[in-house]
Amino acid sequence: MNNFTFYSPTYFVFGRDKEMKAGHYVKRFGGSKVLIHYGGGSVIRSGLLDRVKESLKAEKLEYVELGGVMPNPRSGLVYEGIELCRKEGVDFILAVGGGSAIDSAKAIAAGAVYEGDFWEFYEGKPVEQALKVGTVLTIAAAGSEGSGDSVITLEKGMLKRGASGEAIRPVFSILNPELTQTLPAYQTAAGATDIMAHVFERYFTNTKEVEVTDRLCEAILLTMVKEVPRVIEDPDNYEARANIMWAGMVAHNNLVGVGREQDWTSHALEHELSALYDVAHGAGLAVIFPAWMTFVMKQDVNRFAQLAARVWGVDMNFADPEETAKKGIERFKQFLTSIGMPVNFRELGAKEEDIPQMVKKLGLGDQYTIGSFVKISSAEAEQIYRLAI
Amino acid sequence: MNNFTFYSPTYFVFGRDKEMKAGHYVKRFGGSKVLIHYGGGSVIRSGLLDRVKESLKAEKLEYVELGGVMPNPRSGLVYEGIELCRKEGVDFILAVGGGSAIDSAKAIAAGAVYEGDFWEFYEGKPVEQALKVGTVLTIAAAGSEGSGDSVITLEKGMLKRGASGEAIRPVFSILNPELTQTLPAYQTAAGATDIMAHVFERYFTNTKEVEVTDRLCEAILLTMVKEVPRVIEDPDNYEARANIMWAGMVAHNNLVGVGREQDWTSHALEHELSALYDVAHGAGLAVIFPAWMTFVMKQDVNRFAQLAARVWGVDMNFADPEETAKKGIERFKQFLTSIGMPVNFRELGAKEEDIPQMVKKLGLGDQYTIGSFVKISSAEAEQIYRLAI
Repeated sequence: MNNFTFYSPTYFVFGRDKEMKAGHYVKRFGGSKVLIHYGGGSVIRSGLLDRVKESLKAEKLEYVELGGVMPNPRSGLVYEGIELCRKEGVDFILAVGGGSAIDSAKAIAAGAVYEGDFWEFYEGKPVEQALKVGTVLTIAAAGSEGSGDSVITLEKGMLKRGASGEAIRPVFSILNPELTQTLPAYQTAAGATDIMAHVFERYFTNTKEVEVTDRLCEAILLTMVKEVPRVIEDPDNYEARANIMWAGMVAHNNLVGVGREQDWTSHALEHELSALYDVAHGAGLAVIFPAWMTFVMKQDVNRFAQLAARVWGVDMNFADPEETAKKGIERFKQFLTSIGMPVNFRELGAKEEDIPQMVKKLGLGDQYTIGSFVKISSAEAEQIYRLAI
Repeated sequence: MNNFTFYSPTYFVFGRDKEMKAGHYVKRFGGSKVLIHYGGGSVIRSGLLDRVKESLKAEKLEYVELGGVMPNPRSGLVYEGIELCRKEGVDFILAVGGGSAIDSAKAIAAGAVYEGDFWEFYEGKPVEQALKVGTVLTIAAAGSEGSGDSVITLEKGMLKRGASGEAIRPVFSILNPELTQTLPAYQTAAGATDIMAHVFERYFTNTKEVEVTDRLCEAILLTMVKEVPRVIEDPDNYEARANIMWAGMVAHNNLVGVGREQDWTSHALEHELSALYDVAHGAGLAVIFPAWMTFVMKQDVNRFAQLAARVWGVDMNFADPEETAKKGIERFKQFLTSIGMPVNFRELGAKEEDIPQMVKKLGLGDQYTIGSFVKISSAEAEQIYRLAI
């Protein structure tokens, strides 16, 4: 196990009707002038936005609002939000929505107190100061409600990049599983895939002797394997939604990833897909991850066999662990198909002929690589994309 | 799943040599005048206390010290610590040791800023204000390094009671597995039993649909089942120590217990054992827990069967789940015996004739009960003690 630090100071408020407490928690964490930041139609139509505003008014908090966050949130709205915060003297950003609204809120929070261009944080500068961010989560997926990460797409060139820093970790997050019940099945499944992907990025490591985090990873995956089909079958199943929603937070606040190297190649490869086609991030991951797994499996066949046996219930073939490993990947693909996810370019609507462009935009050049479990060069990235066709 | 809040804002610093950073973190979290609080011989002999002092000096932090914390820490030293903090203007308490030193530090931290008697917190008053507490952990066991709980024994009447509050959750905790390598095997095993007991207290619940926390509980237990025998066999096994140490934190910061009712009968029953005989808390739990499990098993045979199958690898007897459940309890007892723990009064050195006295000190009277999975009356507590003879 490697040395590590772990810090997850977000105050989580979980359960039915908890969005009515948004104002209470904004106040408790020191906010006085709030920017409510959200996407579009659904939070308005469902009445959620009104309930959140009521809760702010009940605490006599002032607020301004900025809607219009898109899936794969864009830099344009971030610049707009930064300007609005400065003009209005905002000291707290309340994101109401999924990972996109939250990531956009984090970008605004960091940019509002920074003299330079906020995009520098997405080019690698650590975020050290930011306005406080709180969230009311409506989709179980990104884990942004409990993470210090944000992913934004720069409109100039459609570059999708991430920023990180303790300062943009939400001070509180409200998780009401009921709010996810109106999601279309496709978005529910894409969110679930994202959650599982966050675990896989951490599970596949060359770090030895990490049983506790292995087991915690498997705990989240086993929960998803049980609960996701239930919720696809019955979208109003509160209990299954609740288990998935909490699993989504645990999958990404890094509890399941400490003490080990993490990979994150598949996320990088997927970012080029969703930047180009504007597909759901989780759907892109459903296409990339099985291909990546197939490509890297020989790096540690026993680790893949362990996953197959412990999570997918594959009977271990002690004479041929590779067969077990392959069956695990096959089961994962079957699972994705069963919940309505695409597992190849064709099903996603991506085009083979765009692969060179995606590889180019990865920006690896000749000498750079991504990943840690297996270091992936530009040429290998192309091979993985081709395995996904 | 029940509604819940989850808040675990402790900054964890994990790995080799990290005690050298104690001063750095005291400063980072705003301490200027420190009380170093510890037990006795071992932290002095090992040179740990000197290293911690060096790290404080390196940051130009002032400190006073108070040693002498005993296992099952006592109120007398807490009063002494409170007086010392007030006299010296201490603003930060650094516990160096195991759960006893940390629990005692928390009691002092709460008492130092409270006008009344600190014992009120241990009679049920929530702790709302306290000096900041940091820890350098030397035993994987109590989980106090990541919890807002403290257990103290009042010398008058030898009453062992707990207090809770966010204010006494450590602001940082340093976990260096190397520091646990010099522990005698018995203490290592008792600590491991305590960790597993923290999971069991949460695992046995009547709350339905808590798959995610069930799986997280099982993840910690599976880790312990693998790692504890390795460390008993080879005390210098850093990797096994590391897995156990982190499992000990996760077992008790309540991540594995949110969204469900928890039981805690066995801890209450054990407190009377360790208060009376001054035995290691974990050893007392090794005696009480199998007896409690046997007593309450019929409340939910399938839950016990699930534990047996998923954690102890018992082949599920679908025609007779109770047989599976019983085998699980039997496996747990065998595991405890294999790591050198007592599993009955005789092996612990407790006396049958003291049972009425322990039952009386539980203070249940005629109408009160403890526990949640099964509510236990005074008469039933006596039956459980007798099952443990």
